[in-house]
Amino acid sequence: MKIALFPGSFDPFTKGHEDIVLRALPLFDKIVIGVGSNTAKKYLFTLEQRIAWIKTTFKNNPKVEVIFYDGLTVDFCAKINAQYILRGLRNPTDYGYESNIALMNKALNNNIETIFMLTSPELMAINSTIVRDILIYKGDAKQFVPTSIQNDF
Amino acid sequence: MKIALFPGSFDPFTKGHEDIVLRALPLFDKIVIGVGSNTAKKYLFTLEQRIAWIKTTFKNNPKVEVIFYDGLTVDFCAKINAQYILRGLRNPTDYGYESNIALMNKALNNNIETIFMLTSPELMAINSTIVRDILIYKGDAKQFVPTSIQNDF
Amino acid sequence: MKIALFPGSFDPFTKGHEDIVLRALPLFDKIVIGVGSNTAKKYLFTLEQRIAWIKTTFKNNPKVEVIFYDGLTVDFCAKINAQYILRGLRNPTDYGYESNIALMNKALNNNIETIFMLTSPELMAINSTIVRDILIYKGDAKQFVPTSIQNDF
Amino acid sequence: MKIALFPGSFDPFTKGHEDIVLRALPLFDKIVIGVGSNTAKKYLFTLEQRIAWIKTTFKNNPKVEVIFYDGLTVDFCAKINAQYILRGLRNPTDYGYESNIALMNKALNNNIETIFMLTSPELMAINSTIVRDILIYKGDAKQFVPTSIQNDF
Amino acid sequence: MKIALFPGSFDPFTKGHEDIVLRALPLFDKIVIGVGSNTAKKYLFTLEQRIAWIKTTFKNNPKVEVIFYDGLTVDFCAKINAQYILRGLRNPTDYGYESNIALMNKALNNNIETIFMLTSPELMAINSTIVRDILIYKGDAKQFVPTSIQNDF
Amino acid sequence: MKIALFPGSFDPFTKGHEDIVLRALPLFDKIVIGVGSNTAKKYLFTLEQRIAWIKTTFKNNPKVEVIFYDGLTVDFCAKINAQYILRGLRNPTDYGYESNIALMNKALNNNIETIFMLTSPELMAINSTIVRDILIYKGDAKQFVPTSIQNDF
Repeated sequence: MKIALFPGSFDPFTKGHEDIVLRALPLFDKIVIGVGSNTAKKYLFTLEQRIAWIKTTFKNNPKVEVIFYDGLTVDFCAKINAQYILRGLRNPTDYGYESNIALMNKALNNNIETIFMLTSPELMAINSTIVRDILIYKGDAKQFVPTSIQNDF
Repeated sequence: MKIALFPGSFDPFTKGHEDIVLRALPLFDKIVIGVGSNTAKKYLFTLEQRIAWIKTTFKNNPKVEVIFYDGLTVDFCAKINAQYILRGLRNPTDYGYESNIALMNKALNNNIETIFMLTSPELMAINSTIVRDILIYKGDAKQFVPTSIQNDF
Repeated sequence: MKIALFPGSFDPFTKGHEDIVLRALPLFDKIVIGVGSNTAKKYLFTLEQRIAWIKTTFKNNPKVEVIFYDGLTVDFCAKINAQYILRGLRNPTDYGYESNIALMNKALNNNIETIFMLTSPELMAINSTIVRDILIYKGDAKQFVPTSIQNDF
Repeated sequence: MKIALFPGSFDPFTKGHEDIVLRALPLFDKIVIGVGSNTAKKYLFTLEQRIAWIKTTFKNNPKVEVIFYDGLTVDFCAKINAQYILRGLRNPTDYGYESNIALMNKALNNNIETIFMLTSPELMAINSTIVRDILIYKGDAKQFVPTSIQNDF
Repeated sequence: MKIALFPGSFDPFTKGHEDIVLRALPLFDKIVIGVGSNTAKKYLFTLEQRIAWIKTTFKNNPKVEVIFYDGLTVDFCAKINAQYILRGLRNPTDYGYESNIALMNKALNNNIETIFMLTSPELMAINSTIVRDILIYKGDAKQFVPTSIQNDF
Repeated sequence: MKIALFPGSFDPFTKGHEDIVLRALPLFDKIVIGVGSNTAKKYLFTLEQRIAWIKTTFKNNPKVEVIFYDGLTVDFCAKINAQYILRGLRNPTDYGYESNIALMNKALNNNIETIFMLTSPELMAINSTIVRDILIYKGDAKQFVPTSIQNDF
């Protein structure tokens, strides 16, 4: 059984994240969306809210699971039997950051491979940081989040 | 009337910023330098000081206005009738960051275009973060700020 | 009168090129599309064909002119009284290449400024080299060229 | 059945290529290594030689097939029923180039996804161009090619 | 006498840092490892601990000195008569950041040159931030620090 | 004795090249400028001319030697007892290209280290390719080459 972990803080989950999960689904038997939370970081939305939105987004996809996790990503992979980490790439800056993490994860656990897919071009500029700024300044962020949760934005 | 917003926190305004504004001036009827300030960020200099330095720098340029703003950049553009956002690019790292913001702004308001110019080569390394470090450590930052305000540094 | 040169070999002109010209038009009084041709380079399409397609694309835009040029870009700017060179940026690789050329052009003629705009995200991957490959292999490149010339592809 | 195409000219096939194929194998039911050849390009090694080396490298991997192809990559995918294109990424320069091609391929055939994996760090600098230079200058390129074909180098 | 400063916060010192110092040693008469510490930053390890680990790492290298410093890097160079600043480069993101600092340092003191070396490929993904994350989450970071201090990890 | 090889095709030698050599000179006992030439490449200037210009540039620097070389760079290093390869970096694109070559060279001969310095900002845009274009189109390239050879341009 091929299981991929899609880790992130998803503060909030965006159309860009949804795009990667939907396009990667046929490749795996299960995708676990691991929602990270650590006390050192400040989030705009609570863990419960972040998880709820992702569950709503994929409520019709039995192959998608949403789970809170903390600790090392490779340890969580081992715990849920995920052999793959799934990540989206939007641009070379992403690449620089993501490749470092992927290589360190491989050094920590050589059995886990990171698989990258490119975010669709029309979604490439979306990132959670800017979405949060828009929300903080009362802008309209509906177009940047999955259709099924737009009513909350 | 072609109006461009040049947004930033300008903490402090540098020769690199001045270079972009002066070279872009012939292209526009007015350039509004929007000085951002939000409570979540810590600045080395007060909003008043940051604005004062920019006003001194352009006191002989009637086409340049200096205004405080907060909120979304595209909303401020709409308020001051700016059809353009002006940004300087120093290097590919800048590009990665700036292009994301520009694309998000276009998604929020399709009538506003971001226009980029390259910082002059001899000014390319100047950035406000390093200038602040120099000032904090009592170094001489005079050469990095506009001539008209060097006495304050 | 604000005149911009949009230089390139346009082999062929793509939707990405069209996007930049249309979005830059309000900023200038005239945009001259300079179609380069030099004997050392091999083109898929003749100069006449490349120019014809651009003329068709902008036949309803009196502010757009299409002219063949060779020689140094800054010399051609001087000849047509263009104070600006207009370039699109799709990604950091573009940026690296374009910034070198822009800085050299500024060193050759300090009166000419290069103005950059970002290609719209959904057009970001289009480049003439790949379009040519598609055409050489008898693929369908219609979606990558301006609507008004799609019948030729 | 999940089939991935791993396309390239493989002039010659390197340890970096082998690394990607071996690590991606568990994810797919079959990986087709598509060896490109077109008359406009000059190769150091003949198509027959390039294919023979890859076949030797994977002679014990029944899930790996080696096939010559020309024409558009997405057309070849359709022909062999590959839903995926597999590519290795070594660095941001690779990323810039590969992402353009991946996005164009998706525009040409939306059913085909490109999947990226990072080349292992100790193999990251290997590229066929430099390997060819070493061979042309009579250097020892053994360490850069798969063990099973090192005798030929 | 050719003296190089190798500045950093080294929180903690990694195999990547050790690699650069050891490979650069033949080029210089002395390498001073300057351990930065400022009150605005939060460190995982105390200054004393960070310095102790580096001293242990190079206890058999009389050409290596370890010194605490704060203030401007170029001022510290002047104080210890270092004509060179030594920096490792792992990737283009590093490059972007490092080149800005190097150019600013040169503007502040034209007598000091920054010398770059590439981190060895197998160590390229190691960075102190990720090592700290591993330690915070009780992961095993032994493989990322110099052999002589691995017992402490 | 510390000897560095500064390899290139220098078609022609520019102010950017001169800048790197002059600033690196205090670090080495000798810098050998290795002028490459291979039959597969087309040069604008003959090998003799390219060498003559560099010799003129450094005629007062007894520590600089100018030698033709072909074959592998590391083999030439071994022949002239150079333990170092010296390279200038202008931008991240350079970095991507240069780092690959440096890592391959290290794999071929582990005793040879590549040392990088940043081109001075005001010279960063200069590259031989653009200088050749300027010359081909009868532009004035004087400002881009060393003072001592400007009369020839």
